Amino acid sequence: MACRQQITPALRRLARSGTSELSRKSARSCAQSIARAGASNGSRCFSSSQQRRLQQTTPRHGQAKDEFTSTKYPEIKRDDRFSRLTPDHVAYFRDLLGDNGSALIDGVNGAADDDLAPFNSDWMRKYRGHCQLVLKPSTTEEFSKILRYCNEHMLAVVPQGGNTGLVGGSVPVFDEIVLSMSRMSRILDFDEVSGTLVAEAGVILEVADQFLASKGYIFPLDLGAKGSCQLGGNLATNAGGLRLLRYGSLHGTVLGIEAVLPDGTVVDDLSRLRKNNTGYDLKQLFIGAEGTLGVITKVSIQCPQRPAAQNVAFFGLESYEQCQKAFREAKGQLSEILSAFELMDEGSQALVHRVTGNKRPLESTYPFYCLIETSGSNVDHDSEKLQNFLESVMEQGVVADGTLAQDETQLRSLWSWREGITEALGHLGGVYKYDVSIPLPQMYQLVEDTRARVAEAGLLGDSESDPVRAVVGYGHMGDSNLHLNVATRAFDERVEKVLEPFVYEWIAERQGSISAEHGLGLAKKKFIGYSRSPIMVGLMKQIKGLYDPKGIMNPYKYI
Amino acid sequence: MACRQQITPALRRLARSGTSELSRKSARSCAQSIARAGASNGSRCFSSSQQRRLQQTTPRHGQAKDEFTSTKYPEIKRDDRFSRLTPDHVAYFRDLLGDNGSALIDGVNGAADDDLAPFNSDWMRKYRGHCQLVLKPSTTEEFSKILRYCNEHMLAVVPQGGNTGLVGGSVPVFDEIVLSMSRMSRILDFDEVSGTLVAEAGVILEVADQFLASKGYIFPLDLGAKGSCQLGGNLATNAGGLRLLRYGSLHGTVLGIEAVLPDGTVVDDLSRLRKNNTGYDLKQLFIGAEGTLGVITKVSIQCPQRPAAQNVAFFGLESYEQCQKAFREAKGQLSEILSAFELMDEGSQALVHRVTGNKRPLESTYPFYCLIETSGSNVDHDSEKLQNFLESVMEQGVVADGTLAQDETQLRSLWSWREGITEALGHLGGVYKYDVSIPLPQMYQLVEDTRARVAEAGLLGDSESDPVRAVVGYGHMGDSNLHLNVATRAFDERVEKVLEPFVYEWIAERQGSISAEHGLGLAKKKFIGYSRSPIMVGLMKQIKGLYDPKGIMNPYKYI
Repeated sequence: MACRQQITPALRRLARSGTSELSRKSARSCAQSIARAGASNGSRCFSSSQQRRLQQTTPRHGQAKDEFTSTKYPEIKRDDRFSRLTPDHVAYFRDLLGDNGSALIDGVNGAADDDLAPFNSDWMRKYRGHCQLVLKPSTTEEFSKILRYCNEHMLAVVPQGGNTGLVGGSVPVFDEIVLSMSRMSRILDFDEVSGTLVAEAGVILEVADQFLASKGYIFPLDLGAKGSCQLGGNLATNAGGLRLLRYGSLHGTVLGIEAVLPDGTVVDDLSRLRKNNTGYDLKQLFIGAEGTLGVITKVSIQCPQRPAAQNVAFFGLESYEQCQKAFREAKGQLSEILSAFELMDEGSQALVHRVTGNKRPLESTYPFYCLIETSGSNVDHDSEKLQNFLESVMEQGVVADGTLAQDETQLRSLWSWREGITEALGHLGGVYKYDVSIPLPQMYQLVEDTRARVAEAGLLGDSESDPVRAVVGYGHMGDSNLHLNVATRAFDERVEKVLEPFVYEWIAERQGSISAEHGLGLAKKKFIGYSRSPIMVGLMKQIKGLYDPKGIMNPYKYI
Repeated sequence: MACRQQITPALRRLARSGTSELSRKSARSCAQSIARAGASNGSRCFSSSQQRRLQQTTPRHGQAKDEFTSTKYPEIKRDDRFSRLTPDHVAYFRDLLGDNGSALIDGVNGAADDDLAPFNSDWMRKYRGHCQLVLKPSTTEEFSKILRYCNEHMLAVVPQGGNTGLVGGSVPVFDEIVLSMSRMSRILDFDEVSGTLVAEAGVILEVADQFLASKGYIFPLDLGAKGSCQLGGNLATNAGGLRLLRYGSLHGTVLGIEAVLPDGTVVDDLSRLRKNNTGYDLKQLFIGAEGTLGVITKVSIQCPQRPAAQNVAFFGLESYEQCQKAFREAKGQLSEILSAFELMDEGSQALVHRVTGNKRPLESTYPFYCLIETSGSNVDHDSEKLQNFLESVMEQGVVADGTLAQDETQLRSLWSWREGITEALGHLGGVYKYDVSIPLPQMYQLVEDTRARVAEAGLLGDSESDPVRAVVGYGHMGDSNLHLNVATRAFDERVEKVLEPFVYEWIAERQGSISAEHGLGLAKKKFIGYSRSPIMVGLMKQIKGLYDPKGIMNPYKYI
């Protein structure tokens, strides 16, 4: 974990004493030594992410443990147009994929439910399907043949990558066949001049990033689930993650994809060129479609050079207004080296502390914390920029306290206070999770308004009989992306009624998005209308109808 | 124009004397003073672009002056399904838009051909249509009503922005109605915290950038035609330009659009959020569709902060291999501040010199030149990085000679040697222009192979009887984007036969793109198959059929 720095007393003193010439000098001298010390190791490690596994954790979001999705959502009925799996169907797939045991999990002919379970549930065990057959093709051709067969025989399918999603998008609802990407895990090509990586969709994000690290490059996406999530799933959900602020969205970095449509057509759009203006950019439709149009089988992506220097600072702040000020200062002063600006409220940090028992980065508690990361090519320059920034926010009294990672271990530790929130929340009971985007000035107000509403309804408290333990907020401030989390002790229908549609209406009134980066999946199926007009939803249905007229691709989800 | 720097003799000496300790020291000392001098003004000016107007220049690309496109391409026939304009049609539009003279140019009822001419021709006067009616709506609602009427009455239309395209995409072929965006020119909103700009599609790029400059921001796209081209056209053609290397493509920076479909439907996807994962990202289809799906009426785009410091260096190099080495070094050492890496061959620079008569930036001539631009937030840091880079390429003998802009005038002047090529070529006769993307190691080989082929055919020479004056290459090396230009003295059928399909086949064999950033328009209509498979073309036609089933949107073009 991060050690305390000498900076803290100075920071605190400055915050109190204002911006006299003396205090400015102290700040400069203090910040100088710290910025240099912190950056001098030129650390190249960028995440404290832990592998997100299928854990036997308490179920979430107001649902009895391992309840079937079909039970929880009785209004969703199995589509009778879909065939039920027969031994004949399975025989076709077995014949196609071979019978070596690794390519197929066959519940129709007796595979144990335990073998199927990981594919039927999401990692939070909020959603559970009735799938009886998992297929693991290892070539595009196999995907093509399988999909064509399923389309002809009206067999519904769910593509499944690392299964780390948060909205139930990658698990079956009824008896859909799971198409696992796990055997499509080869890195195919890397161009060391252009930084273009070509890989199969089942490559785990962290594996791709480690491969790139060995070449001096970095994957332009990073997120907490990197140890399990896969590139294809990242694209299918248009994952945003921690460094979108710096490297932009996948719509900009992905150069090409290969995908298979339900009728078996292979969309061969695996361009490796940074510029290619030859007609409609169809690959963009698959980025963020959540597997409802086809299966992404290969990816070509532009990767930036791995920064030589990295710094991470962690601040305590007295108000959300100060967080906004700090962000504006960081944008202005750190500019091209700013790679992350994360926000955490005290509630979220208290939960992490409670679960992990780790010593907190700062001695006192504050209503808000910000984690700032810089990534650049020159250690000294980055340290100087950070030092100037530190001075500035200290002198202005914007931050109340702060610490700076001195080595890679501390850097990981500081990141763990941000990245560990999801995991910590998961340990404490059910969680209502909202991943939203709201214009920055109003962003945190949603947490306060929600907390007040839950409290007014008498549902929030410290007693074991209070259904809601805490209403917390954190997220990617650099992208106006808030994660509102309502941590509950146990399922209580009243909580959901207080939260929904309140949260969605609140967001819609401010032209926000009800899903900034997690997608819609099953969880937000009902709520798309809060962020998209009927015209836009109609246009989406047109596209769905065009590519998947029989509706076999990931049915029952948002479209 | 740029002044000569003291660096040059030192550079030349170093290039000859190798990398002794002495020469390294000289290089450091010399580069130091120059890098500091060049960067000390912290210039904020980013382009020497000149307004691209409809000029009375010599016609291009093997075509008699002002020849009708329908004459030049006799194989393209007017689609008889389209109605011919009648006074009744015009009366409807006049009633809708008002009769104040600014909203309508009516050749049906007698407007002079001269008034229609600028809308019937592209700026190079390579393409010329027979349009008799120009409409200039000023609201989305007017666009919607016009398109609905046109769709119902089978009237074909061409959306037209700044009309600065290079492939004939924005001018009519037959009697299509021109929908001019010129009255959709309002900047609607700007958020100074997030940097999100919302503007109508007819705003001129330079106007948007100047507005942003006053707010401390920069438009994430810049190109030679910025004085005339419009945001809507930039999006419709997915313009790449000079700083894609730094700010990425419009697929990543555009947050939302409003567009009108042929049936009058308003695609209201004008999100201002950096993250919004609520279904298919349909706006992406309109980016790069060249007006064949609908008319983009409004744009929302993420703008980066305007860099405080900028440097431009101009080098002479002895070979294309050295250019590649310089690029790799620049990527590694200048990293996050590298904002442009442009390549020009001697042929292109000789033409600019001949047309402008300006003193050349370097004393001697070299086979290749590179223009390197850095943009960052800290003048001193950027200068130091550039200085280190200079030392490195000097010590290694990668560059043979160089100069560095010392002030804004010099910076503009150096850029003019890159940005002025198109203009200069235009003054000398017809030009066959190819805007292509090829993997970097092979990129310039296309110019050499083309030159050899033209020479072998006896078409290249200095005599007035030789049809081809020069085969030159230049472009955005940072994006593997080459502009191959074949400058001719006069139309000669043999030239085209020697060039096509040779050039396209050459590119296809290397998995390149036949249009990196200019689009396909009419010019590359026939050649899409060299960069896209029949499956991809088929999928594009599906999309075209979905949005524009009657085919009224920009017909006769690539789809």
